[in-house]
Amino acid sequence: MPAAFAADAQSADLPSWNDGDAKSAIVDFVTRVTTEGGRDYVAVPDRIAVFDNDGTLWTEQPNYFQALFINDRVKALAPEHPEWKDKEPFASLLKGDMAGVAASGEKGIVELGMATHAGMTTEAFNKIVTDWFATARHPRFDRPYNEITFLPMRELLDYLRANGFRTYIVSGGGIEFMRPMTEEMYGIPPEQVIGSSITTRYQLEGDTPVLMREPTVDFIDDGPGKPVGINKFIGRRPIFVAGNSDGDYEMLRWVTSGPGARFGLIVHHTDGEREWAYDRQSHIGKLDKALTEAPERGWQLVDMKADWNRIYAFEK
Amino acid sequence: MPAAFAADAQSADLPSWNDGDAKSAIVDFVTRVTTEGGRDYVAVPDRIAVFDNDGTLWTEQPNYFQALFINDRVKALAPEHPEWKDKEPFASLLKGDMAGVAASGEKGIVELGMATHAGMTTEAFNKIVTDWFATARHPRFDRPYNEITFLPMRELLDYLRANGFRTYIVSGGGIEFMRPMTEEMYGIPPEQVIGSSITTRYQLEGDTPVLMREPTVDFIDDGPGKPVGINKFIGRRPIFVAGNSDGDYEMLRWVTSGPGARFGLIVHHTDGEREWAYDRQSHIGKLDKALTEAPERGWQLVDMKADWNRIYAFEK
Repeated sequence: MPAAFAADAQSADLPSWNDGDAKSAIVDFVTRVTTEGGRDYVAVPDRIAVFDNDGTLWTEQPNYFQALFINDRVKALAPEHPEWKDKEPFASLLKGDMAGVAASGEKGIVELGMATHAGMTTEAFNKIVTDWFATARHPRFDRPYNEITFLPMRELLDYLRANGFRTYIVSGGGIEFMRPMTEEMYGIPPEQVIGSSITTRYQLEGDTPVLMREPTVDFIDDGPGKPVGINKFIGRRPIFVAGNSDGDYEMLRWVTSGPGARFGLIVHHTDGEREWAYDRQSHIGKLDKALTEAPERGWQLVDMKADWNRIYAFEK
Repeated sequence: MPAAFAADAQSADLPSWNDGDAKSAIVDFVTRVTTEGGRDYVAVPDRIAVFDNDGTLWTEQPNYFQALFINDRVKALAPEHPEWKDKEPFASLLKGDMAGVAASGEKGIVELGMATHAGMTTEAFNKIVTDWFATARHPRFDRPYNEITFLPMRELLDYLRANGFRTYIVSGGGIEFMRPMTEEMYGIPPEQVIGSSITTRYQLEGDTPVLMREPTVDFIDDGPGKPVGINKFIGRRPIFVAGNSDGDYEMLRWVTSGPGARFGLIVHHTDGEREWAYDRQSHIGKLDKALTEAPERGWQLVDMKADWNRIYAFEK
């Protein structure tokens, strides 16, 4: 164990956080669990922190970034699929008719997902995703997606790691959509990324083993799937959890109901000017039940507008 | 990165390995991938080693230890299940008639597995397994199971870790059967254990969230499932792999066909006196195809009788 991790909490380097309840609560928690001999001390191997991704570490508006990826991929693949012109939900998507896409329901969305995510090796998909992140730009900010991450949350990840935590992503997004970029964006290596997945199958191409991505769902890492995913991949209960929507509710419940000191954090999207403002009524990132129960459960709300002096690194 | 990991290979501390081809090949590989500036140098984050468990890290005779656990559990639970006296495969098991159990086929085995592994929370199962390992004894050696591990392989795990490797278990055995004991036995933490699993489901007991173990198969981490499991849990291809049976064949293929320096190791059970001698004809741990292809694939055979001067730590 590096000596630094056993000492008292490293001083907080959270410059994008305004002084206030949220920052104080975070620093107080980290100080307590890292103070040797203290009542709430937690050994380094058990200092595990889990973070939702969409809406918690990066923006999820005007749509989930993976949905924007699907949109771009369908357009890129359309020349090879002339039949899509007359086939829903592809036809609507190609015409830019998002209401038409939505009308195809979950079945339609899954079809779009499979057409763009399956039928290739894991390595081929990795390259497609890597290339997309290198070239695609966010529709509102006209910047690469790795700049649409929340600077205060990246500071929080760094701060926790400086205090001996291992940081994991636990997202409803695709595990192989995230893994090619989480190291660069967040300092989180692939083995600490948990997400939804389609099945993969071992096969030989000639004499070379590959893993083929198949068009069937393997695991949905959302809602009650999040504690299941954490238990499956990590095998221990984290002590710190951050989310922003009701899709994180069960993960918040499961993590914060463990014994000893626990911390639950909810990013509340309150800044319609610098980012977006939404909660109980939102189609994307709906935050209702978890918002209602936050006070009684002791979950710390982060008021994006009041608590963060910068949201993105590109802001002045 | 700890400075020690970036330096040349730490000197090999493999006292239970006799000097010979196997030991030389291991030390040569570790030296090459850890020599900075060398052609085969591998950065620390990519130094990932995967190990099968049954027959590779511990003995798998006279039967898989998890099968022996099932046997003990059915007997312990029998008083609560009077109906088992007349129901196969429980009836045969309770009479000690293993041929009768085998006659029930895979369906019967799954039934025994579910009766002993499902219908309880993950925490309750963890306690059952922990208690079993604390009290059960191996039928031949009359010692706790944590002593029936291969000392040379534990030295190898330590040696790799001293050289910046992260060591993972990739086993056909149950993930939650292994996790309670791999840290103590092998120095491998729960998040570095990949195995077969049944589904778990988030639910509330009163107001307390728990994960219930359900009687349905989630994932079979054997044969072609091993590369799939590695990709799912780790998200990168290891550079070192150790196995002992055809159940490790696809994992050996997939790991050793990656680019750059790779090492494939096969533990060959050749010592009928100190352990067991078996390979191509064995019902448990059959090693046939992988043994045939080892020379052409460049996989290093470890001849247990010739290469290991001690098998278990309790030997004089």
